[in-house]
Amino acid sequence: MNYIDDLEKIRKKKPLIHHITNFVVMNDSANITLAIGASPIMAHAEEELEDLIALANALYINIGTLDNYWIQSMFKAGKLAEKYNVPVLIDPVGAGASKLRTETVNNLLKSFKVDILKGNGGEMLSLAGIKGGIKGVDSIKEATMDVAFALSDMFNITAIITGKRDFVSNGKIGASVDNGTEMFQFITGSGCMLGSVVSSFLSVNNDSFIASIEGLVTFDIAGELASRKSKGPGSFKQSLFDEIYNFSNENYKMAKVNFYD
Amino acid sequence: MNYIDDLEKIRKKKPLIHHITNFVVMNDSANITLAIGASPIMAHAEEELEDLIALANALYINIGTLDNYWIQSMFKAGKLAEKYNVPVLIDPVGAGASKLRTETVNNLLKSFKVDILKGNGGEMLSLAGIKGGIKGVDSIKEATMDVAFALSDMFNITAIITGKRDFVSNGKIGASVDNGTEMFQFITGSGCMLGSVVSSFLSVNNDSFIASIEGLVTFDIAGELASRKSKGPGSFKQSLFDEIYNFSNENYKMAKVNFYD
Amino acid sequence: MNYIDDLEKIRKKKPLIHHITNFVVMNDSANITLAIGASPIMAHAEEELEDLIALANALYINIGTLDNYWIQSMFKAGKLAEKYNVPVLIDPVGAGASKLRTETVNNLLKSFKVDILKGNGGEMLSLAGIKGGIKGVDSIKEATMDVAFALSDMFNITAIITGKRDFVSNGKIGASVDNGTEMFQFITGSGCMLGSVVSSFLSVNNDSFIASIEGLVTFDIAGELASRKSKGPGSFKQSLFDEIYNFSNENYKMAKVNFYD
Repeated sequence: MNYIDDLEKIRKKKPLIHHITNFVVMNDSANITLAIGASPIMAHAEEELEDLIALANALYINIGTLDNYWIQSMFKAGKLAEKYNVPVLIDPVGAGASKLRTETVNNLLKSFKVDILKGNGGEMLSLAGIKGGIKGVDSIKEATMDVAFALSDMFNITAIITGKRDFVSNGKIGASVDNGTEMFQFITGSGCMLGSVVSSFLSVNNDSFIASIEGLVTFDIAGELASRKSKGPGSFKQSLFDEIYNFSNENYKMAKVNFYD
Repeated sequence: MNYIDDLEKIRKKKPLIHHITNFVVMNDSANITLAIGASPIMAHAEEELEDLIALANALYINIGTLDNYWIQSMFKAGKLAEKYNVPVLIDPVGAGASKLRTETVNNLLKSFKVDILKGNGGEMLSLAGIKGGIKGVDSIKEATMDVAFALSDMFNITAIITGKRDFVSNGKIGASVDNGTEMFQFITGSGCMLGSVVSSFLSVNNDSFIASIEGLVTFDIAGELASRKSKGPGSFKQSLFDEIYNFSNENYKMAKVNFYD
Repeated sequence: MNYIDDLEKIRKKKPLIHHITNFVVMNDSANITLAIGASPIMAHAEEELEDLIALANALYINIGTLDNYWIQSMFKAGKLAEKYNVPVLIDPVGAGASKLRTETVNNLLKSFKVDILKGNGGEMLSLAGIKGGIKGVDSIKEATMDVAFALSDMFNITAIITGKRDFVSNGKIGASVDNGTEMFQFITGSGCMLGSVVSSFLSVNNDSFIASIEGLVTFDIAGELASRKSKGPGSFKQSLFDEIYNFSNENYKMAKVNFYD
C-alpha cells in the first residue's frame, strides 16, 4: 500500500470534501481537513446542495446532531453524490442509542451508493442487528472482524469498526490497524475527525478499502505522536492538528497493519 | 465536603451528561465534560429525546442560542428528565437581555423540576425581578447572597450566581466561592463549561448544593492553575482542559469556600 | 491613521458585536472578539433580534452555513441595524459557489445599509459580476484594486478583498495591506475571525475605510507573530488568540499599508 503517494496527492490536489456533519465538531473537522491538505466545505441548505456537490471530490455525512431538517439534507446530498459520482462516507454516530439514529442510517444506506461506513463497535453492531455486544473477551478480535465482513456484505460498503484495534473489510479481505492512543477518548470528535481524514483519502483513491486503511493509519499515528507531546486533552488536540499538518512519509514506518482473508 | 470522592465517582462511573446547549460552546462543553471524566451527549431532535434521556445521568439546558425549534426541545427534554428522575441544571444565558430569554427561562422553571439554576449577576437579578442592578459597592456581597436565597425560594432550586465571587444557596444555607481567574472573561463559554462540570457533579451527588460547590471549586481552581501557565486566552483555554483532566485531590487545598446561614 | 487610539477604545468601551454567523466558526469568532477586548453576542431568533440589536455597537453577518431560517434572520437583523443606526459588515462566504449564496448577498446589499463587504477574490469577483477570474499575472494587483473600487461604487460600501495582498476601497481612495501569513490558509475561519476584528474597529470608528485597514493590519500582524511561534495550524490558532490579546502599539510598526487614489 502506498500511503505516501496518496498523502502527496491530497496536498497537491486539495480535494473538496463536502461535510454534512454535527454542530459539535464542525470546527475541528474543518481544521483537520485543512491540516491534511484538503479543502472542507460545510453546507446543508437543500437549495444549494446540487451546485456544491457537483464540485465536491467526496461527501462525508455524519449524523451526530441530526434532526428532521438535517436528515432531509443528508438524503438529498447522498442522492446528488450518486448522480455526480462523488464517493460517500457515512459516520453513524450514536446508532443503536436511539431508534431515530438507527433507522436514519439504515434508510440512508438504502437510498444511495455509500462507499464507506465507519463507526465504533456499539454503533456497528447495532447496524448489523446484533444486540448486547459480543461475549467472551478472547473472541472479540475475530468476532469484530467477522462483523466488519458481515456489514460489508449486508450494505455493499467498506466497513470500518473503530476501537483500541480498528477493523476494516470490503467483504473480500480485511485488515486491522493497531495504531492510536487512548487520548482520543478524552477529546470530542476524534471519530468525526477521522471521518474527515478517511474522506480525504477516499477523494484521491477510489479503492475504499485502501483509502480506509490509509486514513486510519495516518490519523492514528498522528495521535500517537501528539500524545507524546501533550499534558492532557487540551494540548493533545492542538498537537494533533500540528502532527497531521507535518505528517511525513517517515511516520508511516510506525504503521501496524495486519491483513485477513 | 468530600470533593475528592465525587471527582473519583465521576471518573469511575463516566456518567452520561445530556446537553441541550448553544452552537458557540458545544465543542468546548463536550471537551470539558470528557476532561473531567464524564461522557457528554448533545442531541436535540424531539423524536429521539426519550430514548436518550432515559439513559442520562444529568440534563444540562443552556439557552445561549435559543430559537423556537430548540426551545421546544428544551421543554420536552426537561419533562422527560422529570419522568426518568434525571437531575437538571439550567443556564439562563442572556436572561434580561431579551424578553424571549427571560420568559423562556421562567416558563422552563415552571414546567418541570429543576435542581440548579446557574447564571451571572445580571441574568439572575433579572430572573429575580430586580431591575437595574444593586447599588452601593459595600453591600454587593450580602445583597448577592440574599438574591441567591431569594431565587432558591422562588423557584425551589439551588441557585448559583457567578462572578468574581460566586454565591450558592439552596434556600436554607448559602456558600461563597472565591476561587477563579479573570482570564475566564477572555474566553467564550467559561460559564457554559462550568455548567457542564457542575452537571457532572450533580450526576453523582444528588445534593445539588454540595454538587454546585464541588463544580465551582473544581472549575475555578483549574482556571487558576491554567492562568499561571498561559500567555493569553488561547493558551489559557488549552491549559484549562489539561488542568481539569489532571485535577488531583491535592488541588482542593486551594479551595476558598465560606458558608452562610 | 491612529490604530493605537482605536484599539484602546475597543478595550475600554468593550463594544457589543452582534454576530449572525456560521456554525463552523462561532466559537473562534466569539473568542477573537473577546481577545481584542470587545464583547460578542451570537443570536439569531427573530423574536429577540430587536431587543438585542438595539443594544449592539456593530452587526456582523456571515453567510457561511446559511439556510432559509437563518437568511430570514439576516434580513431582519440588517433592517433593525439600519433602524438603530448600527454599522454592518457582511462576509459573503462562498458567493459564486452557489446561486443561493450569490443571490442572498445581492439581496441583503439591496435591503439595508451595509458599511463593509469583505470577501476573498473569488467571492468579490462573483459579486462584481466578473466570471472566471482575472487573466494575466502582472495585472492582478491593479485589477484587484479596480474591482474593490468598482464594488464600492456598485453597492455604496467599503470593499475589502482579502488575499496574499489585501485591498480596501471606499470608492474614493484605496489601500493595500501586505501583512499576513500563509498559515491563515491552514485554519478554518481565519476570514471569519477577521470579520469579527474589523467589526470591532467599525464599532468604535465610523469611518469604515479606516476601520477596515485597522482591522486588517491588526489581525494580519497578529498572524505573523503567531506563525513565528507555532509548529503547525494547531499551535498557530492558539497563538493567534494570545497575540491579539497581547497586541501592543509597538506591533503596528510592522504595518505595510499603501494608499491609492
